[in-house]
Amino acid sequence: MTSFNLLLLPGDGIGPEIMTEAKRVLDWAAAEYGVTFNVSEDLIGGCAYEKYGVPLADETLAKAKASDAVVMGSVGGPQWDGKVAYDKRPEAGLLKLRKELDVFANLRSAICFDALADASSLKRDLVAGLDILFVRELSSGVYFGNPRGIEDLPEGGRVGINTQRYTDKEIIRVARVAFEMARKRGSRVASADKANVMESGVLWREEVTKLRDAEYPDVALEHVLADNCAMQLVRAPKQYDIILTDNLFGDILSDAAAMLTGSLGMLPSASLGDGGPGLYEPVHGSAPDIAGKGVANPIAMILSMAMALRYSLGLGEAADRIEKAVDGALNAGFRTGDIMSGGMTRVGTTGMGDAILAEL
Amino acid sequence: MTSFNLLLLPGDGIGPEIMTEAKRVLDWAAAEYGVTFNVSEDLIGGCAYEKYGVPLADETLAKAKASDAVVMGSVGGPQWDGKVAYDKRPEAGLLKLRKELDVFANLRSAICFDALADASSLKRDLVAGLDILFVRELSSGVYFGNPRGIEDLPEGGRVGINTQRYTDKEIIRVARVAFEMARKRGSRVASADKANVMESGVLWREEVTKLRDAEYPDVALEHVLADNCAMQLVRAPKQYDIILTDNLFGDILSDAAAMLTGSLGMLPSASLGDGGPGLYEPVHGSAPDIAGKGVANPIAMILSMAMALRYSLGLGEAADRIEKAVDGALNAGFRTGDIMSGGMTRVGTTGMGDAILAEL
Ligand SMILES: CC(C)[C@H](C(=O)O)[C@@H](O)C(=O)O
Ligand SMILES: CC(C)[C@H](C(=O)O)[C@@H](O)C(=O)O
Repeated sequence: MTSFNLLLLPGDGIGPEIMTEAKRVLDWAAAEYGVTFNVSEDLIGGCAYEKYGVPLADETLAKAKASDAVVMGSVGGPQWDGKVAYDKRPEAGLLKLRKELDVFANLRSAICFDALADASSLKRDLVAGLDILFVRELSSGVYFGNPRGIEDLPEGGRVGINTQRYTDKEIIRVARVAFEMARKRGSRVASADKANVMESGVLWREEVTKLRDAEYPDVALEHVLADNCAMQLVRAPKQYDIILTDNLFGDILSDAAAMLTGSLGMLPSASLGDGGPGLYEPVHGSAPDIAGKGVANPIAMILSMAMALRYSLGLGEAADRIEKAVDGALNAGFRTGDIMSGGMTRVGTTGMGDAILAEL
Repeated sequence: MTSFNLLLLPGDGIGPEIMTEAKRVLDWAAAEYGVTFNVSEDLIGGCAYEKYGVPLADETLAKAKASDAVVMGSVGGPQWDGKVAYDKRPEAGLLKLRKELDVFANLRSAICFDALADASSLKRDLVAGLDILFVRELSSGVYFGNPRGIEDLPEGGRVGINTQRYTDKEIIRVARVAFEMARKRGSRVASADKANVMESGVLWREEVTKLRDAEYPDVALEHVLADNCAMQLVRAPKQYDIILTDNLFGDILSDAAAMLTGSLGMLPSASLGDGGPGLYEPVHGSAPDIAGKGVANPIAMILSMAMALRYSLGLGEAADRIEKAVDGALNAGFRTGDIMSGGMTRVGTTGMGDAILAEL
């Protein structure tokens, strides 16, 4: 009997409660496909800091590296913001995990479920049918570059420093993921940078172009400035199929795009490296304001679990069925607060889990 | 008789044709208020490169520094993208001008004119009455930090490098502008950063907070992560009054916000330093695809001229009247292509200029 090692890291805020629903879906997949999941659970973020004094313990990281997939909830909260040393903040745990697993390609879908097209801020015809895949570089860029820090200046005062560094190899490996994905989709990639003001963007543009010309002549490539891309995502988002970005631009642009779909609570992500375990997490944060109330939308978490089944656990069919079940639950009228609208049935976190399982 | 020195830099693409309309408005102000403008005109961007071999000639820069205000069109175009040395590209001329004039506070309004609320991608109730003022740091950050460039690596391959550096003084002087503006408006500032991943953002947050606590306790201050801000601008933009940002985040976030107003063609900007000449330019770019066709929307350019009259030339009343005239022309149904909708009167660049002058 096939068996997989899975590490679950629910994290802070709404993480634990939405993870509970994702586990129910995992149990369904195990039973349905006769697979054994050796599931272990651990801490990351603020809760890990409280218990271990660090946001990601070495033992946890070792377990992560030994897993087939790591499925995470979310990290952070106001009780730690600016109140713990910079390298001990919840986000440092997440960044360390991404870096150590070397998951350099973060896939984020912005899909507008038809049942939710009216929940978007945008007019329906601009978002109905929207299906953008972001391929965001996740293990380099200004998030990780040195020198960094806050220093005293000789003339008095202080300076804050961060460094963006991208090597050609780092650019090529993530661009390759975008082009491979493009072949399975619309065969179009838009690559966003600020080549007009940053040399790291010039190198990005050159390397992406070279790779396309050499190996993916069948894929259409467009370069777009990150500021213009932000604007186009509001103006006419359906012009995009795949958007390839660096770490920082991907962070901002994918959040803007997320909102086009009606709610950030809908969007899963998969972070993939070269062969090691994948990391799966919702695009949304830990939502401390609604944590513990049982009202959080578990869909992004459940869809992240589905991505784990597809990309790391060889259960693509189970993933397809879970995605269909989410669609089914929405079509049946079930809504958490963030996506509620007139005439629909309001449910909490567990209620949405029930509705999705009922479709499976 | 009062007289002012004005340098006009129409630039590339649609720059010259929209500048023509702004000059008509300037002539109106001169006659109406009995003021003399000593207007001189010069080149910047690609056109300067073609003529002088550099995107901003020293003579032009000297003229700019000796002016009371510099009013610019736009720079750039595909004929130069990636085809000229990096320090000779059109944008390098603009960046040099900003840096040399030390105009560190870039004010960008995202105002939704009522007549255009239906032209926005967003649902009308989300944008009607929208009035956000961005205060973007413009003369530092990753745009200007060293080290920068593309280097060969010892192990083979290349690396692209850019450096973000912000000193406490640079942060404080631009934050001060935001707080001063806040006192004249809604007394609320949202400051956007990525303090959760960048130390330069941590310093930004600390210094902004300290300044508020020490000198502007009457102004409400909120810190927002740049990715969340991008999302909130799509979700519920009217929650913001003033948004304070660094150079790069301001570039991206203000472009996204611009689109909320219906068209990027509507938005002017003012860049102010400490006493020297201000720099005034539309938020939009050179729109090479429609250049020379006489269809570009001149409103952002005309409103930029109005900002010059207000902030550098002591003619606030003239500025008020020009802004009213733009509103009037829109209410009278005149529309360029970018903001056209059913039942309105389609006009070109000159036609829109006529319609605005008719209201003056
Ligand atoms: C929590 C934070 C460190 C993270 C990031 O900036 O990458 C988040 O915003 C994300 O997009 O996954
Ligand atoms: C043209 C370019 C250099 C510029 C910038 O990035 O600042 C533009 O996008 C802007 O926002 O004024």
